Amino acid sequence: MIIAVIGSSNPPHSELIELGEGVGRELARHGVTVVCGGLSGVMEAVCRGAKSEGGSTIGILPGRQSTEANRYVDIPIVTTMGYSRNVIVVHTGASVIAVGGAFGTLCEIAYALDARIPVVGLNTWPLTATGEGTPIQDRIIRADSPADAVEKAIAAARSRTDN
Amino acid sequence: MIIAVIGSSNPPHSELIELGEGVGRELARHGVTVVCGGLSGVMEAVCRGAKSEGGSTIGILPGRQSTEANRYVDIPIVTTMGYSRNVIVVHTGASVIAVGGAFGTLCEIAYALDARIPVVGLNTWPLTATGEGTPIQDRIIRADSPADAVEKAIAAARSRTDN
Amino acid sequence: MIIAVIGSSNPPHSELIELGEGVGRELARHGVTVVCGGLSGVMEAVCRGAKSEGGSTIGILPGRQSTEANRYVDIPIVTTMGYSRNVIVVHTGASVIAVGGAFGTLCEIAYALDARIPVVGLNTWPLTATGEGTPIQDRIIRADSPADAVEKAIAAARSRTDN
Amino acid sequence: MIIAVIGSSNPPHSELIELGEGVGRELARHGVTVVCGGLSGVMEAVCRGAKSEGGSTIGILPGRQSTEANRYVDIPIVTTMGYSRNVIVVHTGASVIAVGGAFGTLCEIAYALDARIPVVGLNTWPLTATGEGTPIQDRIIRADSPADAVEKAIAAARSRTDN
Repeated sequence: MIIAVIGSSNPPHSELIELGEGVGRELARHGVTVVCGGLSGVMEAVCRGAKSEGGSTIGILPGRQSTEANRYVDIPIVTTMGYSRNVIVVHTGASVIAVGGAFGTLCEIAYALDARIPVVGLNTWPLTATGEGTPIQDRIIRADSPADAVEKAIAAARSRTDN
Repeated sequence: MIIAVIGSSNPPHSELIELGEGVGRELARHGVTVVCGGLSGVMEAVCRGAKSEGGSTIGILPGRQSTEANRYVDIPIVTTMGYSRNVIVVHTGASVIAVGGAFGTLCEIAYALDARIPVVGLNTWPLTATGEGTPIQDRIIRADSPADAVEKAIAAARSRTDN
Repeated sequence: MIIAVIGSSNPPHSELIELGEGVGRELARHGVTVVCGGLSGVMEAVCRGAKSEGGSTIGILPGRQSTEANRYVDIPIVTTMGYSRNVIVVHTGASVIAVGGAFGTLCEIAYALDARIPVVGLNTWPLTATGEGTPIQDRIIRADSPADAVEKAIAAARSRTDN
Repeated sequence: MIIAVIGSSNPPHSELIELGEGVGRELARHGVTVVCGGLSGVMEAVCRGAKSEGGSTIGILPGRQSTEANRYVDIPIVTTMGYSRNVIVVHTGASVIAVGGAFGTLCEIAYALDARIPVVGLNTWPLTATGEGTPIQDRIIRADSPADAVEKAIAAARSRTDN
């Protein structure tokens, strides 16, 4: 199983780094491969956590060189297409764990929900968007720890019937 | 000047269609070219409005045929790349007007804010996302009518120094 | 009608620039809108030619700023996705005129032929690729002047039944 | 090390399937991970060959579901972007092995050469494109067997200084 983890390259506080690293460790312990954007910040933290427990990591990179991956990425995918690679991160996961809530992360959450890919949120609150009657916060599965997030993401991935 | 208009292909109520058409009319009256996703719903409404006032319209299409454009699109851009074309819609505008707030729209808003492209929201409320201390609603320029939205979008586009 | 023109940003000799400018002029005289990659070299030449005859030009840009377009582009489409924008240039044309034959151009020719979009070649010879029994040179419509290329491209575009 | 293998989903004769499978086996024996387009034909053959020798395989898929991957793909990357995923296949490899020469393959060869990624050709002949003075056949490293192709691709990958 592959699960996507999304989060900022430059998170506003270190707690998000710790949460990302915890998510990476838990995913590895469950034998789940991590896919993320492959750069720094939360992305690097989740890869570092996964490798510390012997897990596998995929980085979907925006640029043209595999060398832009953080050093904990096992498999660098070189997309050359900048922003547009976000949609690949999200669709490659059987479910998505969002750590924190910067704009890039919000966009990826929106992509996932639009494609009916389950999203687990860790420290993403408050997040609401009810312009058309669908509160996003009710569509995101809320977790309160890395272990909780990973368990819920695995359960949600298993419940998908379309993939 | 080109301004992007984003909104659902299948909006939940007809008021959004009327708002979209009004935005198209106002943009045309100001000599502004419309860029949008080129399909149905709000996208078709804004193109229809623009054409009714002699304006010009660009549709950034997700599929492989120009024939998928609604009939009010003057210039169909055939991207072949599905979802990923959203980022093109947003970046092609000097500013963005969001009508309503479905998930695809939310993603485009997030792309725009991330790239520091001004976003004017019409009937997108309530929309907040403060996970990292930046309430999105404080970043979106709120408008209360199509004419107001277009005036604010033009002013915001003119104030950009990076494009 | 929109026709794509593809060619190098840095062609090896000035004859290709002259041919590109001639193609642009002829397209404008026939009322055809030009779509190209929007940058320098052959792309700039074709746009300059089109504008000199009052035509319209679309530039499908690789980067994140509309300002990277050459100054003869009327409608800059900002894709942000680098190389991957080539497929958009090709699919947006009802047919394609290739001027010269650099690698980027060759790739675009291959995309077009794969999608059954007609390709007219001007000074692209010799070009063959028969690895699987389909000589590319027999699939490209050869032209010997800008006027000839434009007439053949318009005829080929009209003969398409799929668009 | 990751090496890209490109070839048709529907090759014109079974020899290309055998060559693809042989390339997959040889890559696995050298401990090299395969990246390809993840679908049928030559892509499936190379993955099957790699798995038969205990290798690892990545499939860069064009659609929106991981289930479109052939069953020998270990890591399905779900791009959602159709054609445009070809550029990702090529850039993810430290070098490229082309088996046969359909149009899609030709485009990928052109992308690789444009980006100065080494290309080894197996049964791709005759392929020439000299429109601007650079015969493609002189830029492709010719191989006469799967083992030869893999050795040359590994050597070429090691000689790159930019990645």
